[in-house]
Amino acid sequence: MKRTEISSLGEFGLIDRISEKVPDLNKHTIKGIGDDAAVLDALGKQVLLSTDMLVEGIHFDLAYVNLNHLGYKSVIVNLSDIYAMNAIPKQITVSIAVSNRFSVEAIDEFYDGVMRACARYEIDLVGGDTTSSNLGFCISISVIGYAVPSQIVYRNGAQVGDLVCVTGDLGAAYLGLHLLQREKEVFIANPKMQPELKEENAYLLRRFLLPEARKDIIDFFAQTNIKPTAMMDISDGLSSEILHICRQSRVGALLEEVQLPIHDQVRKQAFEFGIDTTVAALSGGEDYELLFTIAPKYLEKIANHFEITVLGEILPEKESVKLKTKSGNLHQIIAQGWKSF
Amino acid sequence: MKRTEISSLGEFGLIDRISEKVPDLNKHTIKGIGDDAAVLDALGKQVLLSTDMLVEGIHFDLAYVNLNHLGYKSVIVNLSDIYAMNAIPKQITVSIAVSNRFSVEAIDEFYDGVMRACARYEIDLVGGDTTSSNLGFCISISVIGYAVPSQIVYRNGAQVGDLVCVTGDLGAAYLGLHLLQREKEVFIANPKMQPELKEENAYLLRRFLLPEARKDIIDFFAQTNIKPTAMMDISDGLSSEILHICRQSRVGALLEEVQLPIHDQVRKQAFEFGIDTTVAALSGGEDYELLFTIAPKYLEKIANHFEITVLGEILPEKESVKLKTKSGNLHQIIAQGWKSF
Repeated sequence: MKRTEISSLGEFGLIDRISEKVPDLNKHTIKGIGDDAAVLDALGKQVLLSTDMLVEGIHFDLAYVNLNHLGYKSVIVNLSDIYAMNAIPKQITVSIAVSNRFSVEAIDEFYDGVMRACARYEIDLVGGDTTSSNLGFCISISVIGYAVPSQIVYRNGAQVGDLVCVTGDLGAAYLGLHLLQREKEVFIANPKMQPELKEENAYLLRRFLLPEARKDIIDFFAQTNIKPTAMMDISDGLSSEILHICRQSRVGALLEEVQLPIHDQVRKQAFEFGIDTTVAALSGGEDYELLFTIAPKYLEKIANHFEITVLGEILPEKESVKLKTKSGNLHQIIAQGWKSF
Repeated sequence: MKRTEISSLGEFGLIDRISEKVPDLNKHTIKGIGDDAAVLDALGKQVLLSTDMLVEGIHFDLAYVNLNHLGYKSVIVNLSDIYAMNAIPKQITVSIAVSNRFSVEAIDEFYDGVMRACARYEIDLVGGDTTSSNLGFCISISVIGYAVPSQIVYRNGAQVGDLVCVTGDLGAAYLGLHLLQREKEVFIANPKMQPELKEENAYLLRRFLLPEARKDIIDFFAQTNIKPTAMMDISDGLSSEILHICRQSRVGALLEEVQLPIHDQVRKQAFEFGIDTTVAALSGGEDYELLFTIAPKYLEKIANHFEITVLGEILPEKESVKLKTKSGNLHQIIAQGWKSF
């Protein structure tokens, strides 16, 4: 593969190269890349802004994550934050700091992944920054979204009696990461050994490497006139996120272990690794599913949605946040989310 | 000084600590820190978004920049991008990646500088990300601004016959940096020697360490009903920025060397270092002054503004971009802006 040194393009050459990848802008974007700031049209709506920073060696390991997937996932995790407010993301900025260990082709790979996510979710890349680094690869993404004010769902609106719901299934990304780490260790121990990633593990790997954001659920809410009372996306893990919602809403909750949505591949692989599936589902993180609470009157509307599971209900604050196990015991839920320090 | 390990707080503890520094939000901020995204009110205006990434060892050297100043400057350079569009910044997000070589008190110092800049420019800190890093200190800031659509000034509007103007004076930040680098070298050669930064150099050091953004000029434009045809802020250097405006506006320009606004301390220190003041003014960068073009009918309105200097005029594209020297020679202006790769 061709290797072009970034220094041969310079910063402006690199920006031009990235700009060329950007297709026509959507109608909410007045000005994209190429001035001091992007200009966006709010059309009388409220504007949402979220940002994330991803650091090599902390959030990703380039030993088993390729740059194209990394670009895709970096966008998805940011879009997920805007959907989690029941709003629609429309623009992103992407800033990267890269050392000269990376070639121009490597940066292209990264931005190809970024643009693929943008195309799929109808997002404009409107700016960013590119800089060198002595220090490896660091990514910062900001995303702008829009919503009519009455539509926005915060974390602090859960009411006693509400249903606690989650989309999709939980724990798969966590097991996908474990699989990749195991293969890396095998490879380090014996570099001649090719990593063996079985087809039957494809779901777990995809959930970790190429997650999707739940735009479909936000669309479903709009179509069926459902407005959750509180919502957030699951990046750190279900335990951590339900505690955020309960703390900010000043309520408690009771979740049922038996309701946790677990994919068959998670069960199989968790068994092989000797990991408890409930631990994977509660603490795994990086699934980018939505956790939300809704008034019980909506039960019928969501009951037939294949991708939504009712986990339990919201209780008064004094009941704290508990899990009812399959055997009927009550366990206090404590945060075991991601902790990078 | 007390040293608290960041790991003793954890990510959420650190976020709480930063959140406590944030004062009451301005009326355009519906929701700040604490949910998946900040929510901003556009009030029917257009929304501007700019972002910057600053990397230790590339953009700043903690051997001679303290964290409080770094926090202040990191905000200023972003605000400057929004003012350079003739718009008003209202919110920022600040993301940092830090290694455990930094204590909680060090992070406090940084955010104290951030909040001081926010207070001075009436900006809300509405979100961000805090993460660990194996790799030193990396900062990413995004800023949101607002403007009525007709008020926004892009880079591509310069017209033949327009006046080319600049605010303040040029080259001081560049010489401030040189002073600091010299003191660092002295210190490395002989660690017992204290850096000697003379009072008479205070202006140069302040221009590099604690620059300001030209909100006053944007306010002046609003009060006097002046709208520049093109504008940008000088971060890379006058040469680089005038070339951006001319390229995007498809025009040429003639600037007069004799008009370059140079501070007395720049002249003195440039002489001591053997640096040409014109080179410092053209290529120095980091002054965060505004470079703009306006119709000649505004000459009278700006002539008495002490902080605005007319450098020359916009010519047809075929004339290219030139500097007329004090001796009457014409020199092609070429980009010598910042190049970090």
